[in-house]
Amino acid sequence: MRILIANVNTTSSMTETIHAQAAACATPSVEIVGLTPSFGPESVEGNFESYLAAVAVMDRIVRYDEPYDAVIQAGYGEHGREGLQELLDVPVVDITEAAAQVAMLLGRTYSVVTTLDRAVPQIQDRLRLAGLNERCASVRAAGLPVLELEADPARAVDAIVEEARLAVAEDRAEVVCLGCGGMAGLDRKIGDATGVPVVDGVAAAVALAEGLVRLGLTTSKVRSYAQPRPKTVTGWPITSRFR
Amino acid sequence: MRILIANVNTTSSMTETIHAQAAACATPSVEIVGLTPSFGPESVEGNFESYLAAVAVMDRIVRYDEPYDAVIQAGYGEHGREGLQELLDVPVVDITEAAAQVAMLLGRTYSVVTTLDRAVPQIQDRLRLAGLNERCASVRAAGLPVLELEADPARAVDAIVEEARLAVAEDRAEVVCLGCGGMAGLDRKIGDATGVPVVDGVAAAVALAEGLVRLGLTTSKVRSYAQPRPKTVTGWPITSRFR
Amino acid sequence: MRILIANVNTTSSMTETIHAQAAACATPSVEIVGLTPSFGPESVEGNFESYLAAVAVMDRIVRYDEPYDAVIQAGYGEHGREGLQELLDVPVVDITEAAAQVAMLLGRTYSVVTTLDRAVPQIQDRLRLAGLNERCASVRAAGLPVLELEADPARAVDAIVEEARLAVAEDRAEVVCLGCGGMAGLDRKIGDATGVPVVDGVAAAVALAEGLVRLGLTTSKVRSYAQPRPKTVTGWPITSRFR
Amino acid sequence: MRILIANVNTTSSMTETIHAQAAACATPSVEIVGLTPSFGPESVEGNFESYLAAVAVMDRIVRYDEPYDAVIQAGYGEHGREGLQELLDVPVVDITEAAAQVAMLLGRTYSVVTTLDRAVPQIQDRLRLAGLNERCASVRAAGLPVLELEADPARAVDAIVEEARLAVAEDRAEVVCLGCGGMAGLDRKIGDATGVPVVDGVAAAVALAEGLVRLGLTTSKVRSYAQPRPKTVTGWPITSRFR
Amino acid sequence: MRILIANVNTTSSMTETIHAQAAACATPSVEIVGLTPSFGPESVEGNFESYLAAVAVMDRIVRYDEPYDAVIQAGYGEHGREGLQELLDVPVVDITEAAAQVAMLLGRTYSVVTTLDRAVPQIQDRLRLAGLNERCASVRAAGLPVLELEADPARAVDAIVEEARLAVAEDRAEVVCLGCGGMAGLDRKIGDATGVPVVDGVAAAVALAEGLVRLGLTTSKVRSYAQPRPKTVTGWPITSRFR
Amino acid sequence: MRILIANVNTTSSMTETIHAQAAACATPSVEIVGLTPSFGPESVEGNFESYLAAVAVMDRIVRYDEPYDAVIQAGYGEHGREGLQELLDVPVVDITEAAAQVAMLLGRTYSVVTTLDRAVPQIQDRLRLAGLNERCASVRAAGLPVLELEADPARAVDAIVEEARLAVAEDRAEVVCLGCGGMAGLDRKIGDATGVPVVDGVAAAVALAEGLVRLGLTTSKVRSYAQPRPKTVTGWPITSRFR
Repeated sequence: MRILIANVNTTSSMTETIHAQAAACATPSVEIVGLTPSFGPESVEGNFESYLAAVAVMDRIVRYDEPYDAVIQAGYGEHGREGLQELLDVPVVDITEAAAQVAMLLGRTYSVVTTLDRAVPQIQDRLRLAGLNERCASVRAAGLPVLELEADPARAVDAIVEEARLAVAEDRAEVVCLGCGGMAGLDRKIGDATGVPVVDGVAAAVALAEGLVRLGLTTSKVRSYAQPRPKTVTGWPITSRFR
Repeated sequence: MRILIANVNTTSSMTETIHAQAAACATPSVEIVGLTPSFGPESVEGNFESYLAAVAVMDRIVRYDEPYDAVIQAGYGEHGREGLQELLDVPVVDITEAAAQVAMLLGRTYSVVTTLDRAVPQIQDRLRLAGLNERCASVRAAGLPVLELEADPARAVDAIVEEARLAVAEDRAEVVCLGCGGMAGLDRKIGDATGVPVVDGVAAAVALAEGLVRLGLTTSKVRSYAQPRPKTVTGWPITSRFR
Repeated sequence: MRILIANVNTTSSMTETIHAQAAACATPSVEIVGLTPSFGPESVEGNFESYLAAVAVMDRIVRYDEPYDAVIQAGYGEHGREGLQELLDVPVVDITEAAAQVAMLLGRTYSVVTTLDRAVPQIQDRLRLAGLNERCASVRAAGLPVLELEADPARAVDAIVEEARLAVAEDRAEVVCLGCGGMAGLDRKIGDATGVPVVDGVAAAVALAEGLVRLGLTTSKVRSYAQPRPKTVTGWPITSRFR
Repeated sequence: MRILIANVNTTSSMTETIHAQAAACATPSVEIVGLTPSFGPESVEGNFESYLAAVAVMDRIVRYDEPYDAVIQAGYGEHGREGLQELLDVPVVDITEAAAQVAMLLGRTYSVVTTLDRAVPQIQDRLRLAGLNERCASVRAAGLPVLELEADPARAVDAIVEEARLAVAEDRAEVVCLGCGGMAGLDRKIGDATGVPVVDGVAAAVALAEGLVRLGLTTSKVRSYAQPRPKTVTGWPITSRFR
Repeated sequence: MRILIANVNTTSSMTETIHAQAAACATPSVEIVGLTPSFGPESVEGNFESYLAAVAVMDRIVRYDEPYDAVIQAGYGEHGREGLQELLDVPVVDITEAAAQVAMLLGRTYSVVTTLDRAVPQIQDRLRLAGLNERCASVRAAGLPVLELEADPARAVDAIVEEARLAVAEDRAEVVCLGCGGMAGLDRKIGDATGVPVVDGVAAAVALAEGLVRLGLTTSKVRSYAQPRPKTVTGWPITSRFR
Repeated sequence: MRILIANVNTTSSMTETIHAQAAACATPSVEIVGLTPSFGPESVEGNFESYLAAVAVMDRIVRYDEPYDAVIQAGYGEHGREGLQELLDVPVVDITEAAAQVAMLLGRTYSVVTTLDRAVPQIQDRLRLAGLNERCASVRAAGLPVLELEADPARAVDAIVEEARLAVAEDRAEVVCLGCGGMAGLDRKIGDATGVPVVDGVAAAVALAEGLVRLGLTTSKVRSYAQPRPKTVTGWPITSRFR
């Protein structure tokens, strides 16, 4: 089984972090392939960047020409999952939704701790559209930019622990989701500090993607995610025009 | 890894059907153990029976004295999952919720096709409490009692196909969930007849339970599912009084 | 008119408290009969205990062999009301729902003050299923176990008053419901301290049950609460096996 | 105990029908007083008429100068209940809400059958504001004007039975509410024809009003229904200006 | 184009304030006519007063005998808009709804800052009925009566700024609506102090009303707002009886 | 005042249709500029195409180097509005939301009639995110592709009228929105055929955009739509790479 996991930004070190976390969680027989978009922002923090990243991820996936069994979109609260589902015949798992689903199996309510305050509304909107927001106690921001997770991991852990504790004490969360692909690997530290289960979206997505592949299930093509109709699409894939 | 899967009724042939489906879906290294309650109704179709079954399942699980890694409650729309979560330290997965979660990874909306009309409200209530009902297009009943699934499988498939087709055409479902533990194994037949992914709750629960165990995650003990407080509980486990 | 009121735990002094409150509220011509389950926990604080109590209450009611006109389940936020509705031909009133309904006749919003924090999610879930949660401003816990209500009533009143005041001031509740069968009789004290109407669930349930009987109305048997289908139910009533 | 029941229109024969139904349902010691507004429409079918009636009912109640214990507003889906709650110190019960509450004690879902199609949205809005709409399966119209209920009762019963049957069969209602004060007294006929409990709003309101008075409870004065602030109100009560 | 704007209270200086704000916002070719009810309260703060004002506004509009193109009801959170829509053939715009709509074009969430605490529930209810409450972050009260806005404008601005700041910082509002017709003209001051767009309901209503007239659109007469049926309505218009 | 209106697809004849409709609705002093993306699909019917179009529209707008006062995105149910709001300092109006807002000023409920069935879920999701779906009675599809609106207008009108009639009769819509930028100009024909107000999204958006500009209001920059943070964005604007 081969699972593609797409970073949503162009920072390759973050792709490596995500890949490492995914590979560590996967069962041994599963191959994880990390992909980095060819264009777009170095980190995704807002709608403009997220829309651009959505297209860049789709562009990157359609140019991958080896066989694969599932795709994971490793951006938290980002646009684009529905487009991938239309284009592909294999299951597509978004880490935002995977984390929420796993959290809902573990406790009655969950909170998400993300990076910047401006990411909060996007995550809330993605959870609402996914129909997974009813048991979401809160989405909190640790107040640090995505790239700082790598630059200063100790400070990042402290800030995330602080918000996770507030989520449990004040928002009555029973589980905490790490709301950024770049937080992969921090789950145990945060869990030790808070006493509740901590769900990393990348890990959750790997488990769900593996499960779907084993069950032989893939995206319904009946209506919402039917294959695009044949038509003239100028400039696609976009990377073919860049060279 | 050992996963217990509990039938909710006392009909052991149905336990065998459920066990066979679970074992067929599990990865080879996972042992599936099927359990049948010692008391309760021969089939569960309504709230009185479901409450009794909830206690009978809890009674049966607490008397299992080998180690195990996860528990699946294989009753569709039944009471009791929260009680198991309080009593146990391993993950507990309910097939109603597992099927809904997997369906939501495959399409924008899903429908459930169950047995009797009177089961519909119970399934709707369980999905609402689980926060998984927003993308539920409908819960439909095939109009046949649980035990008839075994007595006349051909008629059962026809009746389920008919409702599944209506769910897709009229209720705009993009995925169909088989709404009874006893429907295990019918997923491919129904899928072929309807053209949409069909999710069997037992299979879905096995995939999710395996995933949780591999991720090292279990139920939050912070509030809703904290261990019961020490106190006098008369007549528990109930089976110890029957002999 | 005879109304059965069932305590959900096995502590008979609490049955007496509940009975006294119910009898004090009933019109003089109504006989109130208090019943205590034959098995189960000495107090109900969590889902495991609540499921067990649900079955124990059903078991106790079906063994009552005098005629009666209505049944009140006197556990706050507990499971089981739907099962009683299936088994019986007389109206069944749950004190959680009765209190909420009466509160909604008195103010635009209400809060519930219950015992332990872990009871909060259960009460919220019961109100949601009952469709009575939209005007619920909050469910707050006074932080004391059920049995302490009897052991130290003065401290109980203080703790409940504190939370009731916060409900009015911060959660904007206009009415307060006492969220435990064992709080019966404290309504006037709490009302004097907070200045808002205080609804005791037992009193509310008596008023509603009397009203239903006078109107000649009882549970609909059309779908959700239809009589259980004839089938083999092993070990029921459970108490017959204990002896 | 004396309960005032206010017709919302100026047709005194309808006040008599409502009064007769209320008196028949009340316990013997309760005196029911029927009141007719001094101005406004002869039947209330729409928002303009309903707003006018709301003021006319308030005007009529404030001019009643004998003591009383509770007030019932006997218009289905009409405006005004909140105003009465501000003006009065006794409980105020609206028949729309009373019927819904009683229905919710009897079945998992209920439908309302009203007169004209244009009344449907108003009833839905009142139930939504009252937080009682979640278990409302449908609001259906029998297609006949309010005053025709009196002019041709046989045709009215037929039309209401037809919609009530559809509510049960297609909308999955388990209880039916009669959605017009003028339908008082038809409940048994409709019940016999449909096999589900039928709730008359006037009867329901009498039971609830009696219950509130017996429990010594009245409207919270904390925020929404606080007494109007002292100020100059020109032309009030309006009837004093007419003469 | 002529637009009528109705003050909901009888204080003519407030009509002048509202008229001035409306005229300042209107395109030059549009004539704004301010109207004051002939009866009712000097300020509207609660349901009793609001119902009375609803009728008084309808009474005032129907007696206006020049042609006009649209009507604005300039009371925040008040009853009555639906009645005007039934009576009139021109568009009717309520300032509560207009402000919310405009706010939703400017930010993801908005808060309303109103006068007295008791106005909060009414505003919430009107927004809920209008289907505009989902993105409402909060409704806050500045704690000052309507008429004090005129008596002490400096204190009013301070109190409103304070609540607006809390709405942005704590409730996560991205836009603030001024929740009282009498706050017309304060928008720029509050905007400067908070850094978010501030929407005055009168200004918003003028823009929307102009737009509707230019597009040639008016109220649907199909169901909810159909013209009242011909019938005897005693005492209408009410002012004709006062003289 | 200059308003940019962006077609979401690359078919310039459709840009012309949209431009003509916008110009016909605008007040005379307003200049409407129609823009066509430089890349993307010839028509937008699905999520992949919509995400690509979202980026293409942003790309096109940022390359427009004359001053302007507002931007209209003329795709129905499409992604991208939030990204434009982040990038720009002028108001951004989406035709889906504009149509819904105007419809809600005209009737209690509205339906949308769009092109293909697969567009329905996208429109529903956009309305849900916009908080404008509560009064949406239905979204119906006329069953014809976007480009056929131009190829066979007579058939298009027939198909839309048919669905609009069903929306009014069966879904109880009181207003109909034309759910495709390419339907601009059909509003009067559909209105004549159905008897309810028909709202064209382009016309509605022009009215709202004009209003916002006149009121001096623009997008809040506080959180959701704050300007993107300074960072390296590779390949942006995308068109600069194509040449």
